[in-house]
Amino acid sequence: MSVPRLDVRRAVRAHLEDVLAASGEPALVLAACSGGADSWAVAGALAVEGPRAGVRAGAVTVDHGLQAGSAERARSVAAQLGALGLDPVEVVHVHVGRAGGGPEGRARRARYDVLTAAALRHGAAAVLLGHTLDDQAETVLLGLARGSGARSLAGMAARAGLYRRPLLQLSREVVRAAVPGGVRVWEDPHNADPAYARARVRHLVLPVLEKELGPGVAAALARTAELLRADADALDHVAAGALTAVTRHGPAEPAGPAYDTGELAGPVYDTGELAGLPQAVRWRILRGAAIAAGCPPTDLTAAHVQAVDALVVAWRGQKGIDLPGAIRANRRGRALRFGPL
Amino acid sequence: MSVPRLDVRRAVRAHLEDVLAASGEPALVLAACSGGADSWAVAGALAVEGPRAGVRAGAVTVDHGLQAGSAERARSVAAQLGALGLDPVEVVHVHVGRAGGGPEGRARRARYDVLTAAALRHGAAAVLLGHTLDDQAETVLLGLARGSGARSLAGMAARAGLYRRPLLQLSREVVRAAVPGGVRVWEDPHNADPAYARARVRHLVLPVLEKELGPGVAAALARTAELLRADADALDHVAAGALTAVTRHGPAEPAGPAYDTGELAGPVYDTGELAGLPQAVRWRILRGAAIAAGCPPTDLTAAHVQAVDALVVAWRGQKGIDLPGAIRANRRGRALRFGPL
Repeated sequence: MSVPRLDVRRAVRAHLEDVLAASGEPALVLAACSGGADSWAVAGALAVEGPRAGVRAGAVTVDHGLQAGSAERARSVAAQLGALGLDPVEVVHVHVGRAGGGPEGRARRARYDVLTAAALRHGAAAVLLGHTLDDQAETVLLGLARGSGARSLAGMAARAGLYRRPLLQLSREVVRAAVPGGVRVWEDPHNADPAYARARVRHLVLPVLEKELGPGVAAALARTAELLRADADALDHVAAGALTAVTRHGPAEPAGPAYDTGELAGPVYDTGELAGLPQAVRWRILRGAAIAAGCPPTDLTAAHVQAVDALVVAWRGQKGIDLPGAIRANRRGRALRFGPL
Repeated sequence: MSVPRLDVRRAVRAHLEDVLAASGEPALVLAACSGGADSWAVAGALAVEGPRAGVRAGAVTVDHGLQAGSAERARSVAAQLGALGLDPVEVVHVHVGRAGGGPEGRARRARYDVLTAAALRHGAAAVLLGHTLDDQAETVLLGLARGSGARSLAGMAARAGLYRRPLLQLSREVVRAAVPGGVRVWEDPHNADPAYARARVRHLVLPVLEKELGPGVAAALARTAELLRADADALDHVAAGALTAVTRHGPAEPAGPAYDTGELAGPVYDTGELAGLPQAVRWRILRGAAIAAGCPPTDLTAAHVQAVDALVVAWRGQKGIDLPGAIRANRRGRALRFGPL
């Protein structure tokens, strides 16, 4: 019989030991706490385990300034974090811009920017986040709906730069049972707002999957994420290694028609070498080459990449492939190039 | 505006051209027709496109003998296949055994066995199956519920040995609109029986995903399958290439305690070489090594493989790992071995 609070503390402790092993000196670790249950659990565990592990334990809470009373709530969260024994505790303020993607994405990016700045200001070795196994399952389902391959199904990393997610293998149920006594839990109303895809996945999609496919679906999705993250990392590694063998940086070809001179001095890819690679490796190299030439990554689909791949493996002298960002992929002989339209 | 019957014929034609290019001689292609709508669509398209492509077009229908009237229905399907112009047409009978997995899996394996036997008897170059994009999406969701990585999310192959699935990129809606006029469509009652996981996915899970995540979910799942199939193939290829570098077939070590002599003459894996490989490649090699040593593949989970991997990358002199099939993985120095418990 596992005890939620001990499960959470054990998960946090493993990460603290890892931080210490990596930093090799007295380190500061911060919990990022929104006032939601999951982040209270991680802050509470850090307050207990930090001193035992010989780590200074602090916290940061973000005031998004988007809802009435947010500043007051942030001050209250900070006071409670201090009462748990965390020190330093800081409230950071974020301004969510109006440009660049949907409101969820903008708020997320702005939040990470201020968290990173706070961590650097304090010289912190790590920032702990409260994402659970259920958050991971939701992220996988959202990626699945995009249909864009292993990387989008790989979910969130347990460790990415300064950030660590110690609770990624624990269910939300376990994590919520580990909230420290006496703190006031604040539920972000967005989490229940069906205007948000994540809220629909949480409240409408996952319960149906659990009912029809079995109660282990969230754990299966999280396991899938872990396996596919390793796959995506390995294939990126293999593709990076193969890139050298397929790239030619020879002298530029004689100038062609006026529209394709000059900027065509970029790399040339050898279609003979490319054709000998496994399809998934070739696709990754071609995707990377298109992005390097100026295609916006978010607009470049698998279908675009596969169309370029046909120039490599199904060559019958066809014309170039137009890609997002006004880039065209062209083949002449064995040479594949990416350049302006 | 696409026309379903032409979409289906185009998809079948592309596969016939591929069969001809590969066989290089007059070929026989068979449609596998259950009497269900999807397989009528593929049989109808083969009857039209086969003669145009210079391919002999025949069909096989399977009598499972599990339901009253199945023999009569099979004869009726065969007569209608003949009326479409297909020749030869054969009814093959299958006996579904009681051993080896669930009833769905046993029936499927028995069906493929008799189809393969019929194809070989007739000297057929290919057997066409009627699986659609929606079948593929269902297969991905069923794999997702298992949580066992890219291979289980890779769905069905468009081409696997003799078998081809030309309709895998067409929706069920399009395929069903392409059933030849005049044939009697038979719906397998299992397809609507909620005792079957696939039926629940089709009628209860996918509609919710489409409603909450957008109408493109089935297509996104099918696209995911294609990308992850390529990933899994590439990683298997990389792992096979790396296997040589990590395997030592040196003389057996001096006999150890009585329980690990004799059968430990299998390969030895060099943990130093293994540790330098990407995690996903290492996991595949370790999984393959465990299976080669006698672990039943269906019982070997990702957690088992990751426990063995800890012997490689987190070695602190710990004891061996017990695996399904009474196999143990043991490390001594740099040598990792798999042998009987």
